[in-house]
Amino acid sequence: MGITSPSAVILPPKEIIEFLKKSKNLILATHINPEGDAIGSTVALGIALERLGKNTLLYNRDRVPYFYRFLPGNERFSNSDFETLIKGFQESRGPVDAIILLDCHTLERAAIEVPPDTTILIIDHHEPSEAFKKPARAIPWIEPYAPATGVMVYYLIKALGVEIDYEIAVNLYTAIAIDTGTFRYSNTTPASLQIASELLLVGVKPELVSEALYDSWSINRFKLLIECLNTLEIIDGIAITYVTEESFKKTGTSQEDTENFSNFPRMIRDVKVSVFLRQIDVNKWKASLRSKGDIDVGKVARAFGGGGHRNAAGFIIEGSLEEIKKAIRNRLQDFF
Amino acid sequence: MGITSPSAVILPPKEIIEFLKKSKNLILATHINPEGDAIGSTVALGIALERLGKNTLLYNRDRVPYFYRFLPGNERFSNSDFETLIKGFQESRGPVDAIILLDCHTLERAAIEVPPDTTILIIDHHEPSEAFKKPARAIPWIEPYAPATGVMVYYLIKALGVEIDYEIAVNLYTAIAIDTGTFRYSNTTPASLQIASELLLVGVKPELVSEALYDSWSINRFKLLIECLNTLEIIDGIAITYVTEESFKKTGTSQEDTENFSNFPRMIRDVKVSVFLRQIDVNKWKASLRSKGDIDVGKVARAFGGGGHRNAAGFIIEGSLEEIKKAIRNRLQDFF
Repeated sequence: MGITSPSAVILPPKEIIEFLKKSKNLILATHINPEGDAIGSTVALGIALERLGKNTLLYNRDRVPYFYRFLPGNERFSNSDFETLIKGFQESRGPVDAIILLDCHTLERAAIEVPPDTTILIIDHHEPSEAFKKPARAIPWIEPYAPATGVMVYYLIKALGVEIDYEIAVNLYTAIAIDTGTFRYSNTTPASLQIASELLLVGVKPELVSEALYDSWSINRFKLLIECLNTLEIIDGIAITYVTEESFKKTGTSQEDTENFSNFPRMIRDVKVSVFLRQIDVNKWKASLRSKGDIDVGKVARAFGGGGHRNAAGFIIEGSLEEIKKAIRNRLQDFF
Repeated sequence: MGITSPSAVILPPKEIIEFLKKSKNLILATHINPEGDAIGSTVALGIALERLGKNTLLYNRDRVPYFYRFLPGNERFSNSDFETLIKGFQESRGPVDAIILLDCHTLERAAIEVPPDTTILIIDHHEPSEAFKKPARAIPWIEPYAPATGVMVYYLIKALGVEIDYEIAVNLYTAIAIDTGTFRYSNTTPASLQIASELLLVGVKPELVSEALYDSWSINRFKLLIECLNTLEIIDGIAITYVTEESFKKTGTSQEDTENFSNFPRMIRDVKVSVFLRQIDVNKWKASLRSKGDIDVGKVARAFGGGGHRNAAGFIIEGSLEEIKKAIRNRLQDFF
């Protein structure tokens, strides 16, 4: 599990490169509710491996959100029953050499189960919780300093000797863009800008990616945002907004429409942490935390059994809205 | 007036480099109502010239807006009477070798007047109008393909042999960031990302610049935005939002707090034109129009006695809210 400094070039472990070179059939899986880094990294690596003559199966439990469907190759993802998919893949291609987990490091995050003797390659930039134990036959490559899994996959594709063409480039660019807030967040490294520069030379149009990511909202999604902003409550630098099941119903939207909602209250000077809550069941909520500067919401999220980075993290929490607002505010106070 | 291709390195004219090298006293001026590119480019070049032992005077008619005051060296700008300033400068330093116009190419844009025998260096990336005639003793360097004047100044500082330190870097980075929408707009070139990468290596923290530029809203301004978004009405691709005198009063805000409000409904895929109205008197409104693609709201604005560009324009209109909404919708339909 190599940890590199933020400005350094990230070197993929030889073990992973060698394994991929000699393998034939690979399953690539990423986390549930996939966002740009998950989708872009997985599709880019999938294309690269196919260029090397490998057979691949790209799996996600959930559908690709509509605003990522501009990405070439996003249709490679299958999201029907995993066991059936593997069976079909093995029947036509032969035994699976490994499962590659991208942008996550546990099978649970990808919502898959595999036999215990399966080789698992892990390619992720999320810091594992202390409780994390690598599966028996896993080769983990985890770089918490990498701004995006897309940056790691960029170096891996280079190391595999595959030329980066437009299809790969636009997937990698989107992966890096979404996780760095298009180069606005503190995880933006000199290397990530360097890579973006190279991806533009291959033909990526930053304005088209930005329009797809930021200016392609459905009217209903925008209405949901307004509902959400109307719930804004700021106390002591902590902003809380939420979306209820009722708001989803009222606006004809779904969970995936809330992507990025947590970032809006960050625009306010005095807001140090923005907490966005979305209802996933009667007394069950998904909390997304965004912070500024040194406030480590990753720690906060892990305290609630979730995970994430210093400035962006999340977890699932049960209770009434008032209870959980209070619990989160209390816990956050300790980190100020 | 060299025009280079978007991806090429921009070479400063030898004439400008040589002139600057042999000069002693230089006045740097930029356009009125200065934004990040104007301020950052001017301060960066000013610092670089001082490192070379030149005497400089940085002039702007207006004050540096508060959210650019994080830039080291922004306090070098003088904005008292130009003639008096020059007189004082010449008395203490000797005759002025040249005026350098940055991020603009006419003296009018900088709101200054100089004797006709003054040498004027022009460093700008704005395309001159057809009517533009260079002043008698001007050395113009105009690169409409440059994403920002900051990119041109970067190459000029390099050509002058001045090392780029943190102070220069953060000014150049901010100049480039603001004009490319932090690398989101179509003018973002591979070279501009390359330069940004280098500026990060010198110590620029992208999150601090972004925070200053985008995340420094007052709570009241954000509340006004919510009020505004609650008025959203979309018909046939035209979004209308507004802010009344009452909303200003209710949120403790004023007219300048509405800057950028017109851009929010542009996030919606189906919105072709966003019209934002703010009340300036009982039956008087300021309309700001933003459009996507080919829809020329400049024409619409001129029809109402206002002005602007193809995708951003404005005008003042009298009438009741309902009347003017109807009048604007009717007029806009002709342009679809």
